[in-house]
Amino acid sequence: MANRIDAQLAFLTEACKLKSVLRGTTLCDGSRRENSGEHSWHIALYALIMAEHAHRPINIDRVIRMLLIHDLVEIDAGDNPIHGDHDPAAIEVIEQAAAARIFGLLPADQAAAFRALWDEFEAATTDDAIFAKSIDRVQPVVSNLASGGGTWPVYKVTAEQLYSRVGSKVERGAPAIWHALKARIDAWFASTPNS
Amino acid sequence: MANRIDAQLAFLTEACKLKSVLRGTTLCDGSRRENSGEHSWHIALYALIMAEHAHRPINIDRVIRMLLIHDLVEIDAGDNPIHGDHDPAAIEVIEQAAAARIFGLLPADQAAAFRALWDEFEAATTDDAIFAKSIDRVQPVVSNLASGGGTWPVYKVTAEQLYSRVGSKVERGAPAIWHALKARIDAWFASTPNS
Ligand SMILES: [Ca+2]
Repeated sequence: MANRIDAQLAFLTEACKLKSVLRGTTLCDGSRRENSGEHSWHIALYALIMAEHAHRPINIDRVIRMLLIHDLVEIDAGDNPIHGDHDPAAIEVIEQAAAARIFGLLPADQAAAFRALWDEFEAATTDDAIFAKSIDRVQPVVSNLASGGGTWPVYKVTAEQLYSRVGSKVERGAPAIWHALKARIDAWFASTPNS
Repeated sequence: MANRIDAQLAFLTEACKLKSVLRGTTLCDGSRRENSGEHSWHIALYALIMAEHAHRPINIDRVIRMLLIHDLVEIDAGDNPIHGDHDPAAIEVIEQAAAARIFGLLPADQAAAFRALWDEFEAATTDDAIFAKSIDRVQPVVSNLASGGGTWPVYKVTAEQLYSRVGSKVERGAPAIWHALKARIDAWFASTPNS
């Protein structure tokens, strides 16, 4: 038991580093960039509140577990903004190694279980993972809209890019949310000069 | 449906402010103070990983939901460190008003459900709430130990204070975790001059 708790606390202490990984999005008030730890809390809350809008039946508790662990690999791999310029294959290699290292800190049974849950999220083929991926895309858009466009001007993001990079994923898992979001996105671009 | 999503997004955007509420504890590396949003993520992860150590049978998914929402009232009430100097009755009045305002942003059915879950956490009489409260006390201690004592010297915290303020709550919900933690606390105080 002592060894088990030691391993679990080592994992949880390592996880603390996710609070120091900065994302491409700011807080809703635009005051600073968001970190991946607080982002993970926020989207778990999003999923809990918006579960009813899932396109297909989901197990919301599995979705929340996925979202709590989905970004841990960023401790080694960093956050790679969807509007950024990066090599997906290179990132995947780093993230796979990160998953092995970080989940490997846990007792073997938990390491296997949480690694499998992360693999499921990444593969995005089950209904739970598809909804989890939708929610992961919704929150940054809402934050950007709340802070008057947030980092969109920085990345020179267009409405069409949001349709393809965000809309396709959100619509797949939660079409009603995408419907509401698209109306807000369109209103923002219509009212913003040079966007 | 549109009104429902509008209300849910208003609540979730308000919740974003929890990332700007600073706690008395630092990150595990001592680099800065922790905020209540990332703290909420971290303890939800703690609960998920350490559920097996609950003293009595719990529903871990209810515990996680509780922990995701447990600190939202701090948006209005602020964080009140357990080693700080404050009036519990005055804080309770403010937190009750905060709960009414913040959960009240949700559609009525969700407002009632999440308010009830928060009330259950606060009352700390059900097995789920008792375990959730234990976990909420464990994480700051582990962070403080990881950063070489963290804010304990600032608050002039003694081992006896940790036994009474932390130990009593952790032991009630998760005695095996308290056993492991107490050994670490005792070792820290034994090795730290003037503590
Ligand atoms: Ca994410």
